[in-house]
Amino acid sequence: MPKFAGIVPPLCTPFNDDFSVDTDSLRRHVEVQLDAGVHGVFVLGSSSEVAFLPDAQRRVVVETTVDQVAGRVPVLAGCIDMTTLRVAEHIRTAEAAGADAVVVTAPYYTRTHVAEVDRHFRLLHERTALPIVAYDIPVAVHTKLDGGMVLDLAADGVLAGLKDSSGDEAAFRAVLLGKRDRGLDSFAVFTGSELVVDAALAMGADGAVPGLGNVDPVGYVLIHDHFKSGNLAAARREQERLLKLFSITSVAPPSRMGRGSAGLGAFKAAMKMRGFIDNAVMAPPQLPLDDEELLRIKEKLAEAGLL
Amino acid sequence: MPKFAGIVPPLCTPFNDDFSVDTDSLRRHVEVQLDAGVHGVFVLGSSSEVAFLPDAQRRVVVETTVDQVAGRVPVLAGCIDMTTLRVAEHIRTAEAAGADAVVVTAPYYTRTHVAEVDRHFRLLHERTALPIVAYDIPVAVHTKLDGGMVLDLAADGVLAGLKDSSGDEAAFRAVLLGKRDRGLDSFAVFTGSELVVDAALAMGADGAVPGLGNVDPVGYVLIHDHFKSGNLAAARREQERLLKLFSITSVAPPSRMGRGSAGLGAFKAAMKMRGFIDNAVMAPPQLPLDDEELLRIKEKLAEAGLL
Amino acid sequence: MPKFAGIVPPLCTPFNDDFSVDTDSLRRHVEVQLDAGVHGVFVLGSSSEVAFLPDAQRRVVVETTVDQVAGRVPVLAGCIDMTTLRVAEHIRTAEAAGADAVVVTAPYYTRTHVAEVDRHFRLLHERTALPIVAYDIPVAVHTKLDGGMVLDLAADGVLAGLKDSSGDEAAFRAVLLGKRDRGLDSFAVFTGSELVVDAALAMGADGAVPGLGNVDPVGYVLIHDHFKSGNLAAARREQERLLKLFSITSVAPPSRMGRGSAGLGAFKAAMKMRGFIDNAVMAPPQLPLDDEELLRIKEKLAEAGLL
Amino acid sequence: MPKFAGIVPPLCTPFNDDFSVDTDSLRRHVEVQLDAGVHGVFVLGSSSEVAFLPDAQRRVVVETTVDQVAGRVPVLAGCIDMTTLRVAEHIRTAEAAGADAVVVTAPYYTRTHVAEVDRHFRLLHERTALPIVAYDIPVAVHTKLDGGMVLDLAADGVLAGLKDSSGDEAAFRAVLLGKRDRGLDSFAVFTGSELVVDAALAMGADGAVPGLGNVDPVGYVLIHDHFKSGNLAAARREQERLLKLFSITSVAPPSRMGRGSAGLGAFKAAMKMRGFIDNAVMAPPQLPLDDEELLRIKEKLAEAGLL
Repeated sequence: MPKFAGIVPPLCTPFNDDFSVDTDSLRRHVEVQLDAGVHGVFVLGSSSEVAFLPDAQRRVVVETTVDQVAGRVPVLAGCIDMTTLRVAEHIRTAEAAGADAVVVTAPYYTRTHVAEVDRHFRLLHERTALPIVAYDIPVAVHTKLDGGMVLDLAADGVLAGLKDSSGDEAAFRAVLLGKRDRGLDSFAVFTGSELVVDAALAMGADGAVPGLGNVDPVGYVLIHDHFKSGNLAAARREQERLLKLFSITSVAPPSRMGRGSAGLGAFKAAMKMRGFIDNAVMAPPQLPLDDEELLRIKEKLAEAGLL
Repeated sequence: MPKFAGIVPPLCTPFNDDFSVDTDSLRRHVEVQLDAGVHGVFVLGSSSEVAFLPDAQRRVVVETTVDQVAGRVPVLAGCIDMTTLRVAEHIRTAEAAGADAVVVTAPYYTRTHVAEVDRHFRLLHERTALPIVAYDIPVAVHTKLDGGMVLDLAADGVLAGLKDSSGDEAAFRAVLLGKRDRGLDSFAVFTGSELVVDAALAMGADGAVPGLGNVDPVGYVLIHDHFKSGNLAAARREQERLLKLFSITSVAPPSRMGRGSAGLGAFKAAMKMRGFIDNAVMAPPQLPLDDEELLRIKEKLAEAGLL
Repeated sequence: MPKFAGIVPPLCTPFNDDFSVDTDSLRRHVEVQLDAGVHGVFVLGSSSEVAFLPDAQRRVVVETTVDQVAGRVPVLAGCIDMTTLRVAEHIRTAEAAGADAVVVTAPYYTRTHVAEVDRHFRLLHERTALPIVAYDIPVAVHTKLDGGMVLDLAADGVLAGLKDSSGDEAAFRAVLLGKRDRGLDSFAVFTGSELVVDAALAMGADGAVPGLGNVDPVGYVLIHDHFKSGNLAAARREQERLLKLFSITSVAPPSRMGRGSAGLGAFKAAMKMRGFIDNAVMAPPQLPLDDEELLRIKEKLAEAGLL
Repeated sequence: MPKFAGIVPPLCTPFNDDFSVDTDSLRRHVEVQLDAGVHGVFVLGSSSEVAFLPDAQRRVVVETTVDQVAGRVPVLAGCIDMTTLRVAEHIRTAEAAGADAVVVTAPYYTRTHVAEVDRHFRLLHERTALPIVAYDIPVAVHTKLDGGMVLDLAADGVLAGLKDSSGDEAAFRAVLLGKRDRGLDSFAVFTGSELVVDAALAMGADGAVPGLGNVDPVGYVLIHDHFKSGNLAAARREQERLLKLFSITSVAPPSRMGRGSAGLGAFKAAMKMRGFIDNAVMAPPQLPLDDEELLRIKEKLAEAGLL
């Protein structure tokens, strides 16, 4: 069985107005998640604004989370940077902070190649004893991880898991089948989509890393529990409720701001409205949601029974 | 007149085998460039493997270069990172090291928006007294800088220059015309392509940042000088010679390695063959050129009269 | 209830050596499909090599199929062309041939806009009494159909259905939810992926248009029937078997030929091996599979128990 | 020397309100072009709305143009369709109408490969005695023609020319150098950009196919003539004037319509304002410019001295 499984939300990072980490809110948010029954937490992923966080704030996030979680569930730490040597430095920080695993993307900024992506993961594995979870997120790094490469790396003990945020469910399923056929039982395969968790579990995924879990962790734990108890219809209904809630991420129109800030801004606004965090400020240069957009998010939370 | 103009090569970074910066080679390479008559140097650009360099090595590069150049020409320092707060840290390093300007891309990894790109540059300008040169490099950051935004930022004193590596010569020309029409005389517009320097100068560009200048700086200074003396035919012949030389960047086929390592590997191999640096090793996870590929590069250098 | 539902394979087009339609094989293949229990057939889709077929051959395909099917199941006819007036001509041919519905993509070759895509479908609806099924296939037309637009067009009676070959399961699911919430009961939503049919049905899809159904229609009908009888585990096992079989589409490597000819070539080779058609020739300029590739396809068919 | 050279505008197609070809306007527009001194005309290119024209209208366009031109300059005819057999039919029409050459893109809609693109051109060459000009237009067909392939096809007598609308000036220049080095004197290389004609000629291009030439053919002939007489500065000034005029193509914002209709709509509106054609209607599903947008185009024409 994989070490990591179930619902592992990618935690948003609450800030103070000066963009230092609001550690009180972060600790409170961790408790909200654990109270909901999540099976792990993933810090410093894309939902955490990791791309916006200087190294010092990244360190505070992982240290604070590890301390607050105190071993109750695994803490996965994103080590998101462009290439091997830079990622290796983030891994050292994660190790020092006591993370249980690190999450690593393909190289980006540079124009890369599958042989180089493969080498990237192998070199990092040589440098750390922590389990490495590959993070497949083409929307950010503009490269899709090759499924065959991922399975080979899993078979070679280089990768302990995969978080697939590619949106390519057919390729995801091919990895799941490959895992089974090759007997890679301890290799943990997660979907990174919050919109098809029931389907991913039905296909054999070990778990999910749902960004929307920041807003409604109970919902995702319910999907998981319904699935485990064989109640697929109930899992589906819960997922559909959450799919509607996901529309909070598009209240700000594409003509006004990036899809990143529209989505993360909605998550943080909803988290604040629900009392999980104190401050919904986003790191620069992201633009804030306006009052009308916030009102629509509030309405959607109310419709979903979350306010 | 712009503060920065002419041929400003983006210096490759020589490494020791442990990927520490080979400062002796770096100093020697700076002298090669200055001897050739370049009008500035740009460190920590894409050609420097900036995406591969940990912060400590980045600092060594800019400190060593500023020290070696010793004020003879301006030193521009790339501050390449994903978003505002992270870039701001690199700018502080560049300031401390004595760089004359900083070079900054659009945000990446995140899905951004022109209003956020605009805000990114404005926030950085508030935080530094150094001139900011915008770096338009869609192949790396997957966003094209909007020409109207660039001109507005120039008019507002936020941007001191533009290095356009987009390959979109029509858009580049529109910026050049906009610069002239709006009287932005001190705004320095550089092409980042090594293959159309004569054409860019003829269109009114202030200069060029040619990666191939690492291998043949004399050639690019000749293009510049021929252009300045009105000998367009000679400038063209020189550019055509260099365009052929550029074929060294594709001796390694796309089926074998990324276009990044094929190109930078060729630059570094040629620099070593010409005695500019001691070691052509590239940072991981890039793959090395093989012996046959190195032989073909050697032949091409010989054909070009450079060996 | 929608007029169209269930398994509706997109039929490949068998050719004679001169690229005229091999109508005997086509008729035989139609019978293979109907014997397997498919609920409809879709001719002149991407799998039919519609992009390669001159208008005269297209006409033969739809006339032959309508004649052979003889009303036993609905015949959907692709009307694949770049823009409104050209598509309208194909629709007239489909009408004359007696097709039951037409299938239409977004405009392509031209750079379009959601308002123009919307207008495209509305203008075509004004010109035909046949039901129009929207065909969402970004890999071919480089535009993703907007989900809100599709639902509005369905609500307005412009669209009778959607065939979603976008691979974006989250967006597909949003359309399915929108259909239910807006009470669009007669709007038929099909997945165009052959790899997630069980999941699509579980999400509420009305059916599937699986290209691999050309090779193994029985398998897809089994998925459908298992799903209808509530045996989701059996549906999943069948889909997984077919997912493995789908690997026939990649025996020819990307370095040697386009993904189109690799995939369609594999379908046609397998159809010939199974005796469904006489000749696996593909229209120019597609390249043929070589002997080794054909051998591997044969092995995979044997493994799947299809030979 | 190439058979085709100089300024060869890609003619827009004037319509009647029912989208039949307004042949009177087309004939008048041909005369406007010939009076301006163009060296050829290109019908049924992207600027002609070829993607929107049914085959019957396409035939009328080429027949009318050949008749009106009456041998005074060469008539190139676009044969724009998805794959070989369909293109071959358009070539037969062009042959019958008396065109002097045909212009052909890479396959599209299908996912292709350089070996298939190569085969496409070779098969078409076997089927026609007319010179074939390759049309490199990735924005429409989503494939960039490989420069080495183009040169090989030229050397083998398959291609008589290239119209490069890729916007990749470095690759364009590599083709020009390859042409010279391989002694392909009769191979005609045209830029398809209206914004860098002076630069393209300076790099050695044989001519240009400027869409904006529909609006101001005199301007492009002037660039050509200034270049031929060695007055590069005058050529540049003229190109810069036209680059400003090109802003008519963006008066309609991207939030409102496709870039195709914004651009072609502006061309046709300006042609009507200048009296070249009677009716600026565009084929469906393109959206029309509104009154305010038309007013801004009028102002820009007046500024350019064209009204």
